[in-house]
Amino acid sequence: MTPSGDIGIVTPVQVHFDEPLELQSGKILPEFDLTTETYGVLNADRSNAVLVCHALSGNHHAAGRHDPTDRKPGWWDLHIGPGKAIDTNRFFVVSSNNLGGCDGSTGPNTAQPETGQLWGPDFPQVTVQDWVRAQALLADHFGIATWAAVVGGSLGGMQALHWAAHYPDRVRNCVALAAAPKLTAQNIAFNEIARQAILADPNWFSGHYQREASTPTRGLSLARMVGHLTYMSADGMSDRFGRDISESSDGSQSEDEMVFQVESYLRYQGKQFSTRFDANTYLLMTRALDRFDISEGFGGSLEAAMAATKARMLVVSFSSDWRFSPARSRELVDALLASERPVTYAEIQTDAGHDAFLLDEAHYAELFRAWMAQVTV
Amino acid sequence: MTPSGDIGIVTPVQVHFDEPLELQSGKILPEFDLTTETYGVLNADRSNAVLVCHALSGNHHAAGRHDPTDRKPGWWDLHIGPGKAIDTNRFFVVSSNNLGGCDGSTGPNTAQPETGQLWGPDFPQVTVQDWVRAQALLADHFGIATWAAVVGGSLGGMQALHWAAHYPDRVRNCVALAAAPKLTAQNIAFNEIARQAILADPNWFSGHYQREASTPTRGLSLARMVGHLTYMSADGMSDRFGRDISESSDGSQSEDEMVFQVESYLRYQGKQFSTRFDANTYLLMTRALDRFDISEGFGGSLEAAMAATKARMLVVSFSSDWRFSPARSRELVDALLASERPVTYAEIQTDAGHDAFLLDEAHYAELFRAWMAQVTV
Repeated sequence: MTPSGDIGIVTPVQVHFDEPLELQSGKILPEFDLTTETYGVLNADRSNAVLVCHALSGNHHAAGRHDPTDRKPGWWDLHIGPGKAIDTNRFFVVSSNNLGGCDGSTGPNTAQPETGQLWGPDFPQVTVQDWVRAQALLADHFGIATWAAVVGGSLGGMQALHWAAHYPDRVRNCVALAAAPKLTAQNIAFNEIARQAILADPNWFSGHYQREASTPTRGLSLARMVGHLTYMSADGMSDRFGRDISESSDGSQSEDEMVFQVESYLRYQGKQFSTRFDANTYLLMTRALDRFDISEGFGGSLEAAMAATKARMLVVSFSSDWRFSPARSRELVDALLASERPVTYAEIQTDAGHDAFLLDEAHYAELFRAWMAQVTV
Repeated sequence: MTPSGDIGIVTPVQVHFDEPLELQSGKILPEFDLTTETYGVLNADRSNAVLVCHALSGNHHAAGRHDPTDRKPGWWDLHIGPGKAIDTNRFFVVSSNNLGGCDGSTGPNTAQPETGQLWGPDFPQVTVQDWVRAQALLADHFGIATWAAVVGGSLGGMQALHWAAHYPDRVRNCVALAAAPKLTAQNIAFNEIARQAILADPNWFSGHYQREASTPTRGLSLARMVGHLTYMSADGMSDRFGRDISESSDGSQSEDEMVFQVESYLRYQGKQFSTRFDANTYLLMTRALDRFDISEGFGGSLEAAMAATKARMLVVSFSSDWRFSPARSRELVDALLASERPVTYAEIQTDAGHDAFLLDEAHYAELFRAWMAQVTV
C-alpha cells in the first residue's frame, strides 16, 4: 500500500509503433516510439481510461516517482493519484511524451531508422493533430476504444479539444484547462522571441549542436525566461519578488551582477531548463502551439468545431492568466453553448497566472475533483 | 516660413561641460557633452523654456528634420512644433541626449578624456537622478532658472517627475505620460531578458565589441523585440497582424522561415534597431529604468515625493498600456491628491499600448495641447 494520495514508484515504458505515420505536413515517420507511463488499473471493460496530455515543456512523467530518492514527483502529481482529481483508484491513466519531444519518444534526439543518425533539426514539424493521431494509436495499443476522459492544460488542453472535436466517439469527457481556441499575435510573438533566442545562440549550429558536441544552453535558457515570465502574473511576481535586491548585487555592470531577485530567479529557471530540455524540441513544440487552431477542418468556424464534440466538457480559466486569458476560454464556452453542448465553466480567482493549472489552488482542485468524480467508468 | 505645424530643419549642438560631474554611484565624469537640440526662441525673461526628456531608446532629435531628405522627423514631431501641444511659437524647447546615450552625448561610444579610448562597458552606470542633474546644468548653460514645463513619456516621464520632486522651484509645470512611480518585478523581468539577450551574443565581447570591430546585432535585435512587444497591446497586435501568414512561409523549419506576419514584423523592428542603437547604452538605460523609484530620497514614501512638488501636473495613461498601466499612473495621482497638489489626470482609451504617448491619438493630442496652452510663459 502506498500512503494515501501518493501514487508511489512508476516506470515508463517504450511503446513501439512499426507502421509508418503520415504527418499533417505530408512527411512520413517510418516508425516511432511513445515513451509512456500508466497509473492505476485498466478495468475489464476498458472503460476507465483517462488520457493526460502534456503542455509545451511537459512529458510522460505526470505523477509518482521513478525512484524513491527523486526530489520531485511527476509534473501533475498534485492532481493525479489515489483520491485526487484524476483518481487512480478509479481510473487507468495514460500519459505519453509527445512526438518530437525530448524525453524518450521519437523526436530530434532519437535516431533516424534509415541512417542511425540523430534526427536533430531534420525532425519534421509536428502538429496537435499529429500528436492526437499518435495518441489514438496508443489507445488502440491498449485496446481502449473510448477514453473515459481526455485531460490537459494549456497546449495539453488544446490536444484534449482536438480529441473531442475530431474523435467525438472516442472521448466521453474532455477537460481543457488554461487553453485557447488558437493563439493571438501576441502569443505568437512571445514564442517567436523564444525561438530567435535559440537560433541566435552560437552553439545552435543550425540545430546540429549534438553532432558538434555542443548545446545552445544560453539560447534555451533565454527562451525559457521569456516563457516563464508569461506563465506568471504581474501581481504574482510583485507579491513574490517585489523590488527586492539579490544578495550578490554590487552595483557594478558586470555580466554576473544580480540586482533584483526577480532577475536571479529567472536566470536560475532558465539555466535549470536548459539542462533538461532540447532546443530542437522547443522549436517544434512552440511551432505546433502557434499553428494550432481548433477551427481547422471545420471551415474556420469555432462553433462548428465545438458542435462536432459529443463529450461532457470542463473548461477552466484562471483570472490572472494573461497568456491564455479567461476571455479565450469563454470563446470556447460560448461556442459550446451555441451548439448546446454540455459544458461546465469556471474562472478561478488566483494570482498564479497561467501556471495555476499545475498548482494546488483550493477552488480549482475541488472543482476538478468534483467534476472528475462525475465521470462514469 | 515653414509650413504650419512643421518645425523645419534643425541642427543639434554639442554643449560641453568641463566641470567634473559626480554621479549617484560616486563615480566621477571628469567632463561631459550633451548633444542638444532647441526649437523656438527663448524669450527675454527666459521664462518660456520647456525641457523634453526622452525615453529608453530616444535621443535629442525630438522634432524637425536634420536634412530636407530625411524620411522621418524627430521622434516627437507629432507633438512639438508650431501650433502643436509643445508649441514652438510660444515655447523654447530643449531636448538633449541623456548621459550614457549613443547619439552624441558622453556615453559608452565616446572617448574617455584620460586615455582617448572609448568608454565602452566601462562607462559608469547612470541614473535618472544623474540625467536630471545634467539637465539642470544644461538649464544653467541656457540661463534658464525655471522651466515653464518639463515633459516626458515613459522613462522621460520619470525624469519629469524627478525634476518636479527634487527641483520644485525650477519646474512650473510637469507632464508625465505613460509613466510609473517605479518598476514592478514583471517590468524588471522584461528588461532583464533584453539584457541577457545582449550578454549572450557571441559578438558582445564583454562590451568591448567596438574594440573587436564587432557588433552584437542579434542580441540587440532580440532585446528590441522583447521591448517592442511590451510597447504594443495584445488587442492592437491582433488587429494589426491577427494570424496572417507571411509571404515567405514554406512550412519548413529553417531559420529563415517566417510563418506569421507578427514574427517578420518583430524581426524587422529588431534588425532596424540593432543598426542604430548601442548595446552598452541599452544596458545602461534599462538599468536606470529598473532602479528608478521616485520615492527615493523621500524615505520610500511616494506621497512625500509628490508632496515635495510645486508644479502644476499633468498625468496621462493609456488604457491598453500594460507596461506602465493606468493603475501605475493613478498611484502618482493619488499621492498628488493626498498632498493637495494641482493635478490633471486622463486615461486615454486606445489600443495602441505603451507606444500611444508617441502617437497622434485624437483625445490625447487635444488634451495635451489644451493643457500646455494653459502653461504661462
